Amino acid sequence: MGRTPPHPEVSQFDLQQVLEALVDPVRRSIVAQLDASGVDIPCGGFDIPVSKSTATHHFNVLREAGLIRQYYVGTSRMNSLRRAEMDEVFPGLLDALTRQPVRKT
Amino acid sequence: MGRTPPHPEVSQFDLQQVLEALVDPVRRSIVAQLDASGVDIPCGGFDIPVSKSTATHHFNVLREAGLIRQYYVGTSRMNSLRRAEMDEVFPGLLDALTRQPVRKT
Repeated sequence: MGRTPPHPEVSQFDLQQVLEALVDPVRRSIVAQLDASGVDIPCGGFDIPVSKSTATHHFNVLREAGLIRQYYVGTSRMNSLRRAEMDEVFPGLLDALTRQPVRKT
Repeated sequence: MGRTPPHPEVSQFDLQQVLEALVDPVRRSIVAQLDASGVDIPCGGFDIPVSKSTATHHFNVLREAGLIRQYYVGTSRMNSLRRAEMDEVFPGLLDALTRQPVRKT
């Protein structure tokens, strides 16, 4: 467990920090892909148009805001959406952001 | 009506632009005050810790994102929350952001 990076407790979740994480479209895409897949995804397993080092930055921002939990399986850093914990503190927020906009046809 | 500034149509609402408007805590406060009051509020009637010119900038960003509608009554620029229109396109988003975080006691 020595390699597991630090994560905020639910009591430390902060709306400002969460919004600053989610205002970035690449980070919203990471959250949406985790939400849609329903399973944990390794850092290399996302469809995002950025370099590996930029992706690492985005994962760090999401982790520090409490949106994802990261852990290692062998040499792979896995990402888990902290959906239930976020929903507990900010009900409806992830629902609103991962849903497609409603457009009239 | 010549002084009425331009407003986006509902079909032009864009999640990225809405989030960039709402990531700012002063702008979230303006939206929350409109939501809580239930009535339109003149630009000078908000409790926000910024100068008049900074406030004008914040109102412009909110208007351009479609979050508020502005109109004149005499020399007062009034602000109306476009709540129903936002809820139509991004259901639950304003609810999630204007509600207080849920904290366990």
